[in-house]
Amino acid sequence: MIGNFQLTLPNWALNELEQLPTHLPDVMDRMREVIRFARLNIEHETGGPFAAGVFEAESGRLVAIGVNRVVPSHCSSAHAEVMALSLAQKAIGDFDLGGKEHQAHQLVVNWRPCAMCYGAVIWSGVTSLVIAGSGPELEVITGFDEGPIHPDWQEELLKRNISVTDNVLKEEACVVFEEFRDSGVLVYNASH
Amino acid sequence: MIGNFQLTLPNWALNELEQLPTHLPDVMDRMREVIRFARLNIEHETGGPFAAGVFEAESGRLVAIGVNRVVPSHCSSAHAEVMALSLAQKAIGDFDLGGKEHQAHQLVVNWRPCAMCYGAVIWSGVTSLVIAGSGPELEVITGFDEGPIHPDWQEELLKRNISVTDNVLKEEACVVFEEFRDSGVLVYNASH
Repeated sequence: MIGNFQLTLPNWALNELEQLPTHLPDVMDRMREVIRFARLNIEHETGGPFAAGVFEAESGRLVAIGVNRVVPSHCSSAHAEVMALSLAQKAIGDFDLGGKEHQAHQLVVNWRPCAMCYGAVIWSGVTSLVIAGSGPELEVITGFDEGPIHPDWQEELLKRNISVTDNVLKEEACVVFEEFRDSGVLVYNASH
Repeated sequence: MIGNFQLTLPNWALNELEQLPTHLPDVMDRMREVIRFARLNIEHETGGPFAAGVFEAESGRLVAIGVNRVVPSHCSSAHAEVMALSLAQKAIGDFDLGGKEHQAHQLVVNWRPCAMCYGAVIWSGVTSLVIAGSGPELEVITGFDEGPIHPDWQEELLKRNISVTDNVLKEEACVVFEEFRDSGVLVYNASH
């Protein structure tokens, strides 16, 4: 019986991470990098067109970047957000990025999280979520199902002291989804 | 920058798994084992009071069991369901437990999945979900927050061809939550 599983970033992502500045003070720059990682993930055929970054909200210190690894990792939970949040929690040695001894953490994603990652964001301890968009464009362009997220998703985040900043570099994010669509790569949850 | 993370079952769980029958044809027996693993997880202080099992729905072949590993693994996504589903997907070498070449898979959990795991169930490819209960008892007894799950959660599962069987050994499941409450162990998401 299998007793463990490991999820890894692709090698290209490790190389890219080495070349990034330690801090990205401007939120637009954080999103620009996340979108770039999403594009690289499809160009290298190492997962779906999604990336996410965890940053210290104030200083912009980069804590972790994750990319979607569902198909190559044989793991339907290996979405970009789960990757980034888990890597960040490993980096700080705590399951709670919102613990009192830590700086406030922010999650930056190239679209609104799916139904699963929405919950993952809440449990992670981040206090702000920055997304490129939240409308139907992602599903319309790519064919991905984002799942039954709570109708009052944004209010439910605010109740839990997680702020939301929407529409950051939305056009740039949509271009990556169009590139993904045009690549003909597997839409891995289309069966539902 | 950290590029991988690994999630593991505790050693006691590996030992217990070795002693289980390969098949559990009766759904009640599947739930009984899941509840037993949840109890053992708190007795061994290796995580929260939650366990989940993936079985072949028809034959009852045990594919994987997961237990909650949030606090010891420093990973807020290491819920029992994510553990069990990821271990099962590793076991069959496919991110989709519902792929045409596989037997239909069932997830058995000792309560209704939280907001995150609800989405994880949908993406996993299981075609049936068996839960010990879905009411407020879990939150009332333990103090855990289960998060903003979709109000029509059950209908949304049915739409995606995932059946739900509720109230299987509910009293037995609640006893474990009471034991957890009385143990004084950390309720890890109470800060939200």
